[in-house]
Amino acid sequence: MLITEIIRKKRDGFELNKDELEFLINGYINDEIPDYQMAAFLMAVYFRGMSKEELTTFTMLMAQSGEMVDLSKIEGIKVDKHSSGGIADTTTLVLIPLAASVGVKVAKMSGRGLSHTGGTIDKLESIPGFRTELSKDEFIEAVNRVGAAIVGQSKDLVPADKKIYALRDVTATVESIPLIASSIMSKKIAAGADKIILDVKFGKGAFMKSYEDAKELANTMVEIGNLAGRGTVAYVTDMNQPLGLMIGNSLEVIEAIEVLKGRGHEDLRNLCIEFATEMMILSGIEKDRERAKERLIESIEKGWALKKFEEIIQNQGGNPEVVNDYSLLPQAKYVYELKCEEDLYIKDIDALKLGIAALKLGSGRQKKEDVIDYSVGIELFGKIGSKIEKGKPYARIYANDERKLNEVISDVEDAFTFSREYVEKRKVIFAKITKDGIYEM
Amino acid sequence: MLITEIIRKKRDGFELNKDELEFLINGYINDEIPDYQMAAFLMAVYFRGMSKEELTTFTMLMAQSGEMVDLSKIEGIKVDKHSSGGIADTTTLVLIPLAASVGVKVAKMSGRGLSHTGGTIDKLESIPGFRTELSKDEFIEAVNRVGAAIVGQSKDLVPADKKIYALRDVTATVESIPLIASSIMSKKIAAGADKIILDVKFGKGAFMKSYEDAKELANTMVEIGNLAGRGTVAYVTDMNQPLGLMIGNSLEVIEAIEVLKGRGHEDLRNLCIEFATEMMILSGIEKDRERAKERLIESIEKGWALKKFEEIIQNQGGNPEVVNDYSLLPQAKYVYELKCEEDLYIKDIDALKLGIAALKLGSGRQKKEDVIDYSVGIELFGKIGSKIEKGKPYARIYANDERKLNEVISDVEDAFTFSREYVEKRKVIFAKITKDGIYEM
Repeated sequence: MLITEIIRKKRDGFELNKDELEFLINGYINDEIPDYQMAAFLMAVYFRGMSKEELTTFTMLMAQSGEMVDLSKIEGIKVDKHSSGGIADTTTLVLIPLAASVGVKVAKMSGRGLSHTGGTIDKLESIPGFRTELSKDEFIEAVNRVGAAIVGQSKDLVPADKKIYALRDVTATVESIPLIASSIMSKKIAAGADKIILDVKFGKGAFMKSYEDAKELANTMVEIGNLAGRGTVAYVTDMNQPLGLMIGNSLEVIEAIEVLKGRGHEDLRNLCIEFATEMMILSGIEKDRERAKERLIESIEKGWALKKFEEIIQNQGGNPEVVNDYSLLPQAKYVYELKCEEDLYIKDIDALKLGIAALKLGSGRQKKEDVIDYSVGIELFGKIGSKIEKGKPYARIYANDERKLNEVISDVEDAFTFSREYVEKRKVIFAKITKDGIYEM
Repeated sequence: MLITEIIRKKRDGFELNKDELEFLINGYINDEIPDYQMAAFLMAVYFRGMSKEELTTFTMLMAQSGEMVDLSKIEGIKVDKHSSGGIADTTTLVLIPLAASVGVKVAKMSGRGLSHTGGTIDKLESIPGFRTELSKDEFIEAVNRVGAAIVGQSKDLVPADKKIYALRDVTATVESIPLIASSIMSKKIAAGADKIILDVKFGKGAFMKSYEDAKELANTMVEIGNLAGRGTVAYVTDMNQPLGLMIGNSLEVIEAIEVLKGRGHEDLRNLCIEFATEMMILSGIEKDRERAKERLIESIEKGWALKKFEEIIQNQGGNPEVVNDYSLLPQAKYVYELKCEEDLYIKDIDALKLGIAALKLGSGRQKKEDVIDYSVGIELFGKIGSKIEKGKPYARIYANDERKLNEVISDVEDAFTFSREYVEKRKVIFAKITKDGIYEM
């Protein structure tokens, strides 16, 4: 087989078969195919795309390029959840205990963040003592005992994606829907779950800027997941404004706990309940959607979900007392409030500007080597449509460095637009996509 | 400047400016931009193309990546000629002495062939003693003295093209009209001529298979040449069947001499006169096209053109006696004739099949290191529309190796299709392209 013929075939818009894709991916991992040929191939995919079947084969081959996690020793149907990433999005931290509290088995592998805040793993590590490096046996045993465990993603997972992603990053081939979809789905498939729920965000604070692109990406991933035999459902949700009210690591742990206590912002709470409902349906724990939702609300009201979070924390070596005493979490030295000088409605919040401000404070990584400051971040006191009274704060900045604090004040101010007139709230969920079709809301 | 942004800009269909193209080409030659980024860029160009102005800048920057030949010490307007390559195409060998015999200054740099037969340089080297390696001063002095000289292309010419072409070859980005055009024109521009005449061939025996693609390539090169201030004219000519009757190196030298003697096939002769006419017009030696043609025919009839070839040969150390005694050229050991068993018209000749057969005999190089056998080749006794009488040969194979001879006999047979019915001849010139437009014939 000739690699130039494979590139040519894709360049000319033909579908590649399994043998050809295998030759390409294996050859690339084994350093038999050089970067320049893969780069030409990736650019050809950018222009020509891939058929559903071709992309599913490509994704499966990527997944199989490294370790395929075996979760068969965990009883029941395992559901994984992935978010394309957003600002003030602590959904996963709520979902794990919430879903586990009603019997869903959650074996969660998660990456570290290379974004405005840390990833789920980083956020959990702000809890004193919390261990995210469990052995495979410990991990499975933990899920079987408390119903949920969360660990850092294995380094042996999908080496093909690591190598291809690094190349895409320097060849202007990141923004390709089939390549994004195969990158995400190969990791989800290799991570071993039976079912997958995806949250694809769009807007200023998201990777996908437009709703249409996000919908296409979500639909592509649902196609791959279902063709690969992993029942997959996706939601397309708004990330023009932040989802919750907290941006940061320990701040987002606090917000997750607040939601588990029945508080927190309704947008975040409702989205978590919607996803947890879907996880119950996918795992077969509940067939009736209304009944699933009732059970989840009951679990929050009765304190079961919060109790489950305490169990998970304790089981992974963390101090479960944090759920009652937030001062056990890392605290920032400086707190600065931005206030309204008259009664105003929030007209717009630029999620990206707030994300960048939080990153400047130290809440995320710009490079892999960067060390996260768990304590810093931004707290909001409302979302679009909220009324802020005269003299009350609309945002609070948590910082450990005065210079950085002074630097971001104007960034946070600039992220907000106010109006004297009443402003409508914005919806969060724009579409739900299953193998049966796209349902826009 | 960021190379990824340059790739992205091209990928998204924008025009690159001079600074960006300079950054790209210089960075690539200096090994600051790696192959994989250039490969992604080239594939993006394959899909997005380049505007006229952008492509001209790109071509000029390629040309300037190495030595720019200075021909200013040669008096008058220098005209260069380039052919995209064909089978039985000895045009250049005829043109050099023919044009020089009427006063055109021909300073010809030519590449070695990596094709079915050698290039012009290889063909000339079949003449005993002929030197194609002249110093720059010798070269210019030779043109000033006899009106024409021909040397091998300097190794320092257009290093950017050498490096980019090698990469295109392994990344399925050869078949891009702007990239082909810039590759050819960068070399022509660096070679220093004031005016350029291009012969772009199409058909089975040519690089461009379709007439439409050849026309587009020719038009693109005419645009580049004229925007670069080198008045350029292109012809689009047929290469479905061979142009002349001889395929090989010393065989094509003989055919060129035959044309200079007023013999040879009319298609080859007419095309040489057409090109020489254009060279006279371009160089300003003659304004009237009919008068130019008359002067060329007169030069052939009076033996001036042949005499000029003798002078050129002698001037470069070759034995001019070859023009009278073909036995001074390398001779093949075996000659095999293919004959017709009844009166037949030639209906079709597959130029590519004959080219491959000649290559098998040893007339060309498959790899750079291959050594050419000057004596071998194929002689035809007619073209499409010719009548071959019963018992007469339609082709003759010249070989030095019996095994190779036996191998190609059926190839040569297969290249011919005959008909008992009368068959129309085919035209050679399909279009002429100048800066004023495309004239189809």
